Amino acid sequence: MSDEFSKRFFDYVDERKNLYIDRLAEAVAIPSVSSDLENHLVDINTMIAWTKGHIERLGGLTELVTNPAGTENRPLPPILCGSFVSNPHKKTVCVYGHLDVQPAAKDDGWDSNPFILTERDGKLYGRGSTDDKGPALSWLWVVEAHRELGVELPVNIKILYEGMEESGSEGIFEIIQRESAPGKFLNDVDFFCISDNYWLGKNKPCLTYGLRGIAYFQLSVRCCEQDLHSGVLGGTVYEAMTDLIQLMATLVDSSGRILVDGIMDDVKPVTSKEEALYNSIEFDVEEYKEENKIKSVSDKLLHNDKKSLLMARWRYPTLSLHGIEGAFSGSGAKTVIPSRVIGKFSLRLVPDQDPEKIARLVKTHVEQEFAKLGSPNRMELEYFHGAKAWLSSPNHPNYQAAAAAIKTVYGMEPDYTREGGSIPITSTMEDSTGMNVLLLPIGACDDMAHSQNEKYNVKNLMNGIKVLGLYLHELGKIKGPKPSDCRCVPLTLEELSIPGAFMKGFRCKCEI
Amino acid sequence: MSDEFSKRFFDYVDERKNLYIDRLAEAVAIPSVSSDLENHLVDINTMIAWTKGHIERLGGLTELVTNPAGTENRPLPPILCGSFVSNPHKKTVCVYGHLDVQPAAKDDGWDSNPFILTERDGKLYGRGSTDDKGPALSWLWVVEAHRELGVELPVNIKILYEGMEESGSEGIFEIIQRESAPGKFLNDVDFFCISDNYWLGKNKPCLTYGLRGIAYFQLSVRCCEQDLHSGVLGGTVYEAMTDLIQLMATLVDSSGRILVDGIMDDVKPVTSKEEALYNSIEFDVEEYKEENKIKSVSDKLLHNDKKSLLMARWRYPTLSLHGIEGAFSGSGAKTVIPSRVIGKFSLRLVPDQDPEKIARLVKTHVEQEFAKLGSPNRMELEYFHGAKAWLSSPNHPNYQAAAAAIKTVYGMEPDYTREGGSIPITSTMEDSTGMNVLLLPIGACDDMAHSQNEKYNVKNLMNGIKVLGLYLHELGKIKGPKPSDCRCVPLTLEELSIPGAFMKGFRCKCEI
Repeated sequence: MSDEFSKRFFDYVDERKNLYIDRLAEAVAIPSVSSDLENHLVDINTMIAWTKGHIERLGGLTELVTNPAGTENRPLPPILCGSFVSNPHKKTVCVYGHLDVQPAAKDDGWDSNPFILTERDGKLYGRGSTDDKGPALSWLWVVEAHRELGVELPVNIKILYEGMEESGSEGIFEIIQRESAPGKFLNDVDFFCISDNYWLGKNKPCLTYGLRGIAYFQLSVRCCEQDLHSGVLGGTVYEAMTDLIQLMATLVDSSGRILVDGIMDDVKPVTSKEEALYNSIEFDVEEYKEENKIKSVSDKLLHNDKKSLLMARWRYPTLSLHGIEGAFSGSGAKTVIPSRVIGKFSLRLVPDQDPEKIARLVKTHVEQEFAKLGSPNRMELEYFHGAKAWLSSPNHPNYQAAAAAIKTVYGMEPDYTREGGSIPITSTMEDSTGMNVLLLPIGACDDMAHSQNEKYNVKNLMNGIKVLGLYLHELGKIKGPKPSDCRCVPLTLEELSIPGAFMKGFRCKCEI
Repeated sequence: MSDEFSKRFFDYVDERKNLYIDRLAEAVAIPSVSSDLENHLVDINTMIAWTKGHIERLGGLTELVTNPAGTENRPLPPILCGSFVSNPHKKTVCVYGHLDVQPAAKDDGWDSNPFILTERDGKLYGRGSTDDKGPALSWLWVVEAHRELGVELPVNIKILYEGMEESGSEGIFEIIQRESAPGKFLNDVDFFCISDNYWLGKNKPCLTYGLRGIAYFQLSVRCCEQDLHSGVLGGTVYEAMTDLIQLMATLVDSSGRILVDGIMDDVKPVTSKEEALYNSIEFDVEEYKEENKIKSVSDKLLHNDKKSLLMARWRYPTLSLHGIEGAFSGSGAKTVIPSRVIGKFSLRLVPDQDPEKIARLVKTHVEQEFAKLGSPNRMELEYFHGAKAWLSSPNHPNYQAAAAAIKTVYGMEPDYTREGGSIPITSTMEDSTGMNVLLLPIGACDDMAHSQNEKYNVKNLMNGIKVLGLYLHELGKIKGPKPSDCRCVPLTLEELSIPGAFMKGFRCKCEI
């Protein structure tokens, strides 16, 4: 039946290309910019209402959940929950997406109005086209196809769409924790799927099974209560900036080696099984340099072979120095001795590295190094925020379902990739529910999310809808009990709500 | 006669205390803020016209010289030249002052309206009271006193007042060079006197005979063409910020030691004669810490005895790290790998250090250190601007004239001080004319120029007028030819105009 379905489904989708483009154009035309709520809250709410209307038109139930992070003086857009639940015994997938976008203006260097979807050479240019309106809305067109083709949905679908993702996802973490409690919206979800990242390259699909964590620090040094004149006072005071620069120089060397003792202790060695995953990955080091505008400057990376480079991005920690607050940062010259300077740096963490432990190691390090300086100034290290790395298994049935769908649509196995950045909602979903989360990117690496001329290939739009549709069917084929029925470790709401607790697998230690 | 004069003069001045305060109040009420020409050019011009009126009332000649740095779209206030020349055979002193002020607003933390001169506890609070309206205008009250007492001025006086000093003295450098040519306004000046700095302490007068020079640098490192995401790219690129921090850390250590090879080569050792000058200087290290708000933070200076501390400020070079352009400098967290970062640092230079040579040493240093890093990034050092240190002799007749005046008024010898900062006009006057420049401060160290609650002690106002008046009489006693008549080395206008040329002594190699 699946083969028969996929043929009918593909034909159906192919016939509606212009419809999908028109609808994406409608969505892109709503400037739902979440970084400017004063001007665009109304647009985000419009975008959410537009989407809610489609869910209801397709027979789904909807609820607008008040954003718990909003206040009377600063209201935030609600979270849109939708559901297509036909049979409680079927497995349930929760799909996440966001309906807000990054800011954009023609003047920033766009070749066409960012809020008028414009097709050039098979590419649909517009803000939000790939991030994340295109992928997010595709789930609805999948449901629509089933409805119009008279095919029952193979799994129940729960929809979780937010309008604040580009501005820190305010409120949704709390909602996810709350709605994971027994009897609540997310409690019977068996699989999560997020389509909000990108392929590693331009042509080959991938599935993403790991994200790095983070530990962000602020290192401050103060030498006096007010800024001083370097002519008048220079030579008489222990300057805060001198101390800070000395300290920052002890954190990382030019080759990227982290100089903090013990920082690599919990980094697992590469197994041959893991290494094998990298062999088949389609990735071009030269293209990477080109895309990131490194080629024209230094044309040299820290690692110049594919495997080392990807491992450095995905499975090894790094330390970056971001900047200094309180020092002179303008153009031109200012002869100031800053009174207090705050160095900003962060480590990207990998699985098994505990941010709290990393924070202790960094603290010990800077205290030892500061003692060596013999400075009377006041030094303080603040562990600003942290998040554990996230790692899933490409072998999980959720991933294998997506892989099978991709194989049918694209005729090739996906690459299994990780990402160097963090997507905090991923861990929140997994920690709160114990269920597996799949990152299923639809867009290509050159889609320029967050940048000028963001685009979504027509090919990716069309194939994306097909992949998402078949993925549901592959999920439907999974045998055994619903993973969310597994109660091998009972959890209370309190336990689920511990901020930062790493509860992966709590609900499902057993094999499904 | 001088003794008789000084008694009559002192009585005359003492009787007019309220008049002097009223006139200073009139001047302070004109908000001649040169950093905000859009709103205050008219006020600067009013202040200049007010002063011009007084000069003319007292029988002086005036000329408003068009500011050569002004344009049609951005007009600048003129330079006010005045003269009281009674006899071309008398010696001529040129007195410099400025009529513009720093910005000020009650909201910044002033205890009273900064543009309403307010007396509290013998202190006159108001913007410009000490910097520089109080001292600058005092010359006029000295002339007025001679006129009203029927005493001939012992020297010719030329007045040079500008309205852009707080904003880089635009235009006046060119004027000074131009007017130093044969036959021009400054060509027959024998002595210069600037009253625009401050005592070292609160109670004891001083004369300032040295200023440090400067060499300002911008050190840039670029790793790519656009900022990168530290999660996505971290671990793959040679980060510009890492290189810059490593380089900046090689410039100076926490104890203030400059780590650039050869930097101390031209610093003269302290002679016993020079050292002796420091013995009598009234300076309290504890008060210094208190005033500069260092005490409450670290309570420790690089040097904790008077002599070492003053030498570190005045006669040794220093290196300060001011900040970084292009890196993250805001509050909070941003996970950026900046593409190009520009470190700002400067050295304060002392006599015999040539800024150009220092720039070469710094260049060699950063190039060597950068080579050690083995980074493929693009490093560039820019020598942004420089100025030689300025050093005069406390034994010059110009200084000794002021010292004698101070002794009569205060009953004590002045301290001979240097300053850590730079006052570029000083070198320009000396270089252009070859004549000696005296820095004769009138205000106290705690007058808070440029800061909130700027004030001028009534005592300093009154004694200041007396000192300036007697100084003219001491100048009048100097025997021998006019120093400006000395033509031992003839100079062309071209030679006088070489920017940055150090022409001290060109016009007067002979002893006067």
